Amino acid sequence: MTNDYRMLSKGVRLVCVRNASSLGFIGLGNMGGPMAMNLLNKAKGDLWVYDVNADSVDKAVKAGAKAASAPAEIAENCDRIVTMLPNSPHVMSTFGGEQGLLSTAKAGTLFLDCSTIDPAAAQTVAKMCLEKETVFMDAPVSGGVGAAAAGTLTFMVGGPAAEFEAGQSILQHMGAKIVACGDVGTGQAAKICNNMMLGISMVGVSETYNLGKRLGLDPKILASIVNAASGRCWASDTYNPVPGVIEGVPSSNGYAGGFGTTLMAKDLGLAQDAATNTQSPIPLGSLAHQIYRVMSSDPRFADKDFSSVYALLSEEKLL
Amino acid sequence: MTNDYRMLSKGVRLVCVRNASSLGFIGLGNMGGPMAMNLLNKAKGDLWVYDVNADSVDKAVKAGAKAASAPAEIAENCDRIVTMLPNSPHVMSTFGGEQGLLSTAKAGTLFLDCSTIDPAAAQTVAKMCLEKETVFMDAPVSGGVGAAAAGTLTFMVGGPAAEFEAGQSILQHMGAKIVACGDVGTGQAAKICNNMMLGISMVGVSETYNLGKRLGLDPKILASIVNAASGRCWASDTYNPVPGVIEGVPSSNGYAGGFGTTLMAKDLGLAQDAATNTQSPIPLGSLAHQIYRVMSSDPRFADKDFSSVYALLSEEKLL
Amino acid sequence: MTNDYRMLSKGVRLVCVRNASSLGFIGLGNMGGPMAMNLLNKAKGDLWVYDVNADSVDKAVKAGAKAASAPAEIAENCDRIVTMLPNSPHVMSTFGGEQGLLSTAKAGTLFLDCSTIDPAAAQTVAKMCLEKETVFMDAPVSGGVGAAAAGTLTFMVGGPAAEFEAGQSILQHMGAKIVACGDVGTGQAAKICNNMMLGISMVGVSETYNLGKRLGLDPKILASIVNAASGRCWASDTYNPVPGVIEGVPSSNGYAGGFGTTLMAKDLGLAQDAATNTQSPIPLGSLAHQIYRVMSSDPRFADKDFSSVYALLSEEKLL
Amino acid sequence: MTNDYRMLSKGVRLVCVRNASSLGFIGLGNMGGPMAMNLLNKAKGDLWVYDVNADSVDKAVKAGAKAASAPAEIAENCDRIVTMLPNSPHVMSTFGGEQGLLSTAKAGTLFLDCSTIDPAAAQTVAKMCLEKETVFMDAPVSGGVGAAAAGTLTFMVGGPAAEFEAGQSILQHMGAKIVACGDVGTGQAAKICNNMMLGISMVGVSETYNLGKRLGLDPKILASIVNAASGRCWASDTYNPVPGVIEGVPSSNGYAGGFGTTLMAKDLGLAQDAATNTQSPIPLGSLAHQIYRVMSSDPRFADKDFSSVYALLSEEKLL
Repeated sequence: MTNDYRMLSKGVRLVCVRNASSLGFIGLGNMGGPMAMNLLNKAKGDLWVYDVNADSVDKAVKAGAKAASAPAEIAENCDRIVTMLPNSPHVMSTFGGEQGLLSTAKAGTLFLDCSTIDPAAAQTVAKMCLEKETVFMDAPVSGGVGAAAAGTLTFMVGGPAAEFEAGQSILQHMGAKIVACGDVGTGQAAKICNNMMLGISMVGVSETYNLGKRLGLDPKILASIVNAASGRCWASDTYNPVPGVIEGVPSSNGYAGGFGTTLMAKDLGLAQDAATNTQSPIPLGSLAHQIYRVMSSDPRFADKDFSSVYALLSEEKLL
Repeated sequence: MTNDYRMLSKGVRLVCVRNASSLGFIGLGNMGGPMAMNLLNKAKGDLWVYDVNADSVDKAVKAGAKAASAPAEIAENCDRIVTMLPNSPHVMSTFGGEQGLLSTAKAGTLFLDCSTIDPAAAQTVAKMCLEKETVFMDAPVSGGVGAAAAGTLTFMVGGPAAEFEAGQSILQHMGAKIVACGDVGTGQAAKICNNMMLGISMVGVSETYNLGKRLGLDPKILASIVNAASGRCWASDTYNPVPGVIEGVPSSNGYAGGFGTTLMAKDLGLAQDAATNTQSPIPLGSLAHQIYRVMSSDPRFADKDFSSVYALLSEEKLL
Repeated sequence: MTNDYRMLSKGVRLVCVRNASSLGFIGLGNMGGPMAMNLLNKAKGDLWVYDVNADSVDKAVKAGAKAASAPAEIAENCDRIVTMLPNSPHVMSTFGGEQGLLSTAKAGTLFLDCSTIDPAAAQTVAKMCLEKETVFMDAPVSGGVGAAAAGTLTFMVGGPAAEFEAGQSILQHMGAKIVACGDVGTGQAAKICNNMMLGISMVGVSETYNLGKRLGLDPKILASIVNAASGRCWASDTYNPVPGVIEGVPSSNGYAGGFGTTLMAKDLGLAQDAATNTQSPIPLGSLAHQIYRVMSSDPRFADKDFSSVYALLSEEKLL
Repeated sequence: MTNDYRMLSKGVRLVCVRNASSLGFIGLGNMGGPMAMNLLNKAKGDLWVYDVNADSVDKAVKAGAKAASAPAEIAENCDRIVTMLPNSPHVMSTFGGEQGLLSTAKAGTLFLDCSTIDPAAAQTVAKMCLEKETVFMDAPVSGGVGAAAAGTLTFMVGGPAAEFEAGQSILQHMGAKIVACGDVGTGQAAKICNNMMLGISMVGVSETYNLGKRLGLDPKILASIVNAASGRCWASDTYNPVPGVIEGVPSSNGYAGGFGTTLMAKDLGLAQDAATNTQSPIPLGSLAHQIYRVMSSDPRFADKDFSSVYALLSEEKLL
């Protein structure tokens, strides 16, 4: 895919329209809803919105947005369009479907896809966009619902360097940090790499603290040692999975809230696919994936924060 | 073991001699040599030394130490004794052998064992010491040869709380940080827990950066993202295994120096034993152990820093 | 995909033409070449062939086959068509491309795809075939080049039960055993399931025999015990990876020939994808996948039989 | 250990007494009880028995055995002694304790230890026996309580070749198959190698059949394919973990009976220790160990047959 995209993009003078007029937003879910609200409040001009869920659209319209009946209508009216969708098939049909964005998109339109999808899928859509002389950038986010509402998300952006500034001028209304990662797909790559490392760390921290406890170590003492030594990591010093070590994180609240086991399994599934496609060995990433996979189908863990892997390994009681 | 030790120590009024006179040191190797030198230079009173290697003893004697012919002679002359030995069998025979420390040790002697051994072995020796009315503390170190020479090691100390101060007064001459971890064996537990987490992180970071690279991400850009996000860890932000990301670490020097693959395999072997003994599941720790185990018997990696696992996974050329 | 296929196939009276006339064969590689030769010699009527490699086509033409210039020409002339291609994208373009089979296929044509591909990809192509009122069956093989030449392959067949007999009447010329597995995709599923189990067994047998050897057990004695006990498996009793235990297998010939490490890594990649798609945990399959993945990029193992994993784990010298 | 044992045994003319008189048996548990009963009924001469549990002893006495008050009394009266104990510490104290066998054993006594313990522990006890001019052989069994009662166990025997016949003449009363494995410790080695392979196969088979099922394959059809192909193994063709595939095995009886998850975790713990001691990489054995470890501490699986790993991975309901 990458090669096709590169071949096609070579020699093409690809620019998105300067002085763009209207903004579009597709996907008003838990994350997309508050993101659209920030765009509406902070960016100039109209905001057109679309979602399959009529209630979400109504809510946005009451706040001042204009409703479109299909992605095609968004692309007719806007030349800056943000998408925030659950997975690759949704992205694919939103762009390429019969009433999809590309059926009406004008040359020079800029697409910013904030969904978390396979990097190869991002490159496929980018290629389809390129054929319509439009610009596609992948811009997945880190930060949860709270950051989406506060407008403090981090965006990891992949796409043509020349258009980064244009993308940034829009994303800045929804995020505190916008990082240029490289070509199309590298935004997704950065996200899944970070999340794979996180998924590994959390299992590792959980087994480490459980072993320590069984060897007679108080978890808080172990934390004070590890967090000042070479075992230090975010999963230990900021989001510790052992109840009582850090206040205010899911482990100290019965593993409620946070980042669900099922979402972590989904992200590690993307990492697994990307690794298989690129023939990259990921021994620990694979094993962590399988562990969250088992947890996702266990009713005790499926709806809990992913740090509940500590409870799986340690027999810590869940609330 | 633990239970035996606890049973025995109950009701026993165990104190080490106050106003102790002489210091002893056994094990003048790469780490023990410079540690003994710091004791000699900074602590009051005589320092008696013993090692199977005559050259190491000569060197210490030239610097002002007194040579003993066997551990037993050390215990005859000293009531504060530091040991720094390669593994459990060495520790066992140094304490319990025919010419061992316990054959002559006086009641109230304080032993500080800085070797890295199995926590259960530390508890066994502690029990033997207790039977002779002496005090045993495990005090493994973190920090390498440089920190040993500079006297800036970290000591993780397990043993009776009442005697921690007595131990600290000696260890402070060799280290910058002395942490009380709990009962006998918890110093070892803290060390192997930290190192297991480190061993896991390093494999995880290596596969993450390799996957990122194959997906088109520049390792320095990935580092800037991960190190500011939830994938952050020491193995990424301080000791990155990808050549060129951080200056002055082994990966930027052909993986020479540092902490050898074989040593990491040894420490993970201790973690594995401790986990099996306590029936603690350590899925990622086990897998990381097996990976370093394979590397330890591969001539390309056996003598390299453990971060060369990146080279194993990525086909990065070794120097 | 499955659901789409099922929805579409419901109520459709799907039959392949009875008394079919001509046979077609696409993909005259190492496996496909001898398979086509058996069809040519044993089946009635003409055999039309196509391959991108002109030499392979020439060879078949000299033996009596008719050459087609593109898949489309095959479908114009034949209503029974066998395909044997390297991977999903090849299958996809051979069926769906501009000069692909489906551009000219007549209603009632029967396709038998012997390639090893993702079950989901097989279902996608089956759906495309169904839309043209043609019948698609997946029929991947087990057995190597020798069995292809001897016409003793095993075919695992997925597709409409009513058409199994029609498929069998053709496959029987190339194989000794034809197994009906269920709906479209289950032939592929059976193959990747068997090969995943094989990949796991071979790593397991290799680590078991290496451990035994290091504990002082003669490999032949261990084989006599394991093969008569609950550890018995094909990888131990028929294809033992320890040199000298069984004559005539790759391990007794420097791990030359056999089933290459790279092919095993490919098949486990398909298993991994299928597992991620269906959210099935495969902890050992994943880990075995990663091990063959590492071997595939190591010049010592890439071209060897997959049983050379014993050499990786044991430091057995490779020839 | 091995080396010490070899050094000591060199040049020693070690023979067990010919025309031995009395038999002893220590450890009358689930397995040992019926084994002793077979000895009592089939072997000539008196049988002296010992167990910490008085009821077990009473039962044997009623059947004709003579009761001893301690292992030492057994060794006073017998020169052929069988032991069947739960783990290494029990074996160690039964032989080396104050009232242990070696406190009274006569030169030429033959010990047959049927316990499942660490090969290194077997070698340590063998060395202690050698110092008393007695002969030790490790002879762990395969087969469960039923085979113990029927006298059809398999014994894997490690010890001096010259004494194998003497051991066999006793073991034959309790087993159908007696295999000479090599030096002391290799009986244990053979047992843990076989069981490690079994433990790996069972996880592998479970994930394979679950993946197959989710891909639409009927488990019985998959069994007919795998069992005739290269994925064939005992765990699939004789003890299939999928309910309904084979009648009469634990999976078709709610996973009751059979070989418990906890026992499998114990045996894999021995394999893990042996692997760490000999620096042998066992990636899949380690991972399988961790999986049974997690199951052992989950009340749903702890008391079930180890094939219930299929239920863990597949969400198959447990009875």
